[in-house]
Amino acid sequence: MTRPGTVAKAGEAKLLSLVRRWCGAGSRRPGGGIGDDCATVKTGARTLMTTDAFVEGVHFRREWTPAWHSGWKALAASISDIAAAGGVPTAAVVSLELPPSLTVAWLREFYIGLMACARRFRIAVVGGNLSRSSHVACHIALLGDAPRRRVGRAGARPGDIVAVTGRLGGSLAGLLCLRRGIRGRAAEVARWRHMVPVPRVEAGRSLALVASAMIDVSDGLVHEARLIANESGVAVALVPGGVPVHPAAAALAVALRRDAVELALGSGEEYELLVCVPRRRWGAAVRAARRGGVPLTAVGEVRRGTGVTLAGWSRNPRGFDHFAGCWRATDGPAGSR
Amino acid sequence: MTRPGTVAKAGEAKLLSLVRRWCGAGSRRPGGGIGDDCATVKTGARTLMTTDAFVEGVHFRREWTPAWHSGWKALAASISDIAAAGGVPTAAVVSLELPPSLTVAWLREFYIGLMACARRFRIAVVGGNLSRSSHVACHIALLGDAPRRRVGRAGARPGDIVAVTGRLGGSLAGLLCLRRGIRGRAAEVARWRHMVPVPRVEAGRSLALVASAMIDVSDGLVHEARLIANESGVAVALVPGGVPVHPAAAALAVALRRDAVELALGSGEEYELLVCVPRRRWGAAVRAARRGGVPLTAVGEVRRGTGVTLAGWSRNPRGFDHFAGCWRATDGPAGSR
Repeated sequence: MTRPGTVAKAGEAKLLSLVRRWCGAGSRRPGGGIGDDCATVKTGARTLMTTDAFVEGVHFRREWTPAWHSGWKALAASISDIAAAGGVPTAAVVSLELPPSLTVAWLREFYIGLMACARRFRIAVVGGNLSRSSHVACHIALLGDAPRRRVGRAGARPGDIVAVTGRLGGSLAGLLCLRRGIRGRAAEVARWRHMVPVPRVEAGRSLALVASAMIDVSDGLVHEARLIANESGVAVALVPGGVPVHPAAAALAVALRRDAVELALGSGEEYELLVCVPRRRWGAAVRAARRGGVPLTAVGEVRRGTGVTLAGWSRNPRGFDHFAGCWRATDGPAGSR
Repeated sequence: MTRPGTVAKAGEAKLLSLVRRWCGAGSRRPGGGIGDDCATVKTGARTLMTTDAFVEGVHFRREWTPAWHSGWKALAASISDIAAAGGVPTAAVVSLELPPSLTVAWLREFYIGLMACARRFRIAVVGGNLSRSSHVACHIALLGDAPRRRVGRAGARPGDIVAVTGRLGGSLAGLLCLRRGIRGRAAEVARWRHMVPVPRVEAGRSLALVASAMIDVSDGLVHEARLIANESGVAVALVPGGVPVHPAAAALAVALRRDAVELALGSGEEYELLVCVPRRRWGAAVRAARRGGVPLTAVGEVRRGTGVTLAGWSRNPRGFDHFAGCWRATDGPAGSR
């Protein structure tokens, strides 16, 4: 009935004991951990909480993505949300949907990636849940220590400088290379950028002390800029020519028949930080990003008004809409779509 | 392309604003809430954290279950885990998978149920995530204030009395009535019991102060007793004749061609509490449960040894295995399956 080496063959109790072993010593703690229904986490007075999903067929494909990359990325997406709030991630619970035909080997490799990411950011995986399903899905809820000063999306003020950490476009270039089967050195770099993103926790923590608004680039620069504009009640004027393009995206633009800047503007799952900084704090912001090990590049400014403008850009910037299942124009305010 | 009234037609941004409205004032808070990537939650020094999944086709069927019942139950399952740890639930994040063809009306009704449960237990729904998928799935992570004294599964000692809150069997009877299309007054009561369970938060909080081990009955009494036996390194001797049978299960046993006690022993998703109590604290335990508004019934005792025994019972008690996709015998230690 059930094939050897599959999760159906292993059964729930065996899988739980394997997951407990894969998650290592951190998962076994007095007062509950993996295998218990509930974990106890040490917390401060204010705790950040976020959740993110990683669904097969939507966020990844098993045939394109090695399992350990999926495990890394599933956790990285949540870490990036904590980073954008200026927090430090602390503890996670992992709720998995698994098809009965999935191999235990795949799941093991998934946990190798997930735990590599957890260890890189000193996160304790304290619990989770396993459920049968028709596909693989990983829902992670992550806690973080809140910063002294909470920075959100609503604090941008006219005159602020808009800036971004790192370089953009690599993730989308990597995704397109995967889809189109493009190979080579640059494609490999872009694929890696797409599949093993490194959230900017250290930079976020420092930038939170000087920024007026901050968000992570998970659905594309223009999309995130629009969220800040809407929530802050301001306009964001971006200068596309100033957007730092990832070298792999620049190298692949011709092969992908895309403009390099267009790749940088529309690329999601970058997990870089988009920040708004009052002018007088710009020097402090650059130093803050440097302390976090990333460059900070000015890409525009905050103005009175609404929406996002792209100086000298005629094409429609695009953002991904989960439910339309397509990249679509984000030319109206988000609420009006 | 996309049908009117579906989540695909509404789009992600519109859905987010609807969810924000459905979740009410509690979701809109300074320092991030629904619509932000990350929420800020007030916490004490030690916080309980748990996660649970509610997957279409595994935990519910849209054709059997009204959407609001699913919403209630999705949250109730997580609350029950906090209750079993003696904690008080405080804040939740809700990560949803939604098929594009799902109607917004279904989702609205789902949130009506979820928020009814949240309000009943004073839980703030502080954030979440929406993802496209091929089916509906709801993954909830829930925080709770930790009790002064944490009770888990590993504290049972030989001589302890094993007891259960409330009455068992109603949930399984309700599920079987749904499957077989059985109608009538008792079936209605059992269905309600299956679909709108009320976790024992108040009782759990009081019982945690006197119990040596506690667990919620989510996969059946015998299954939970075995988990306590394994984790505590003891044997649990149950007296099936002493198990309190839910009146609806007793009334439906003949129609379902099942023994009423067998229903009570195997019924999952009861969300009653199975506790082990040192004999000298038995009176205090009964009073603690009464303060929580539920009866407490002794159903056995803890002994030296391993595993679960059922006095005067020849049949194999069964527990649900998610990955085998069937109810299967749990006659070996959980780890050996």
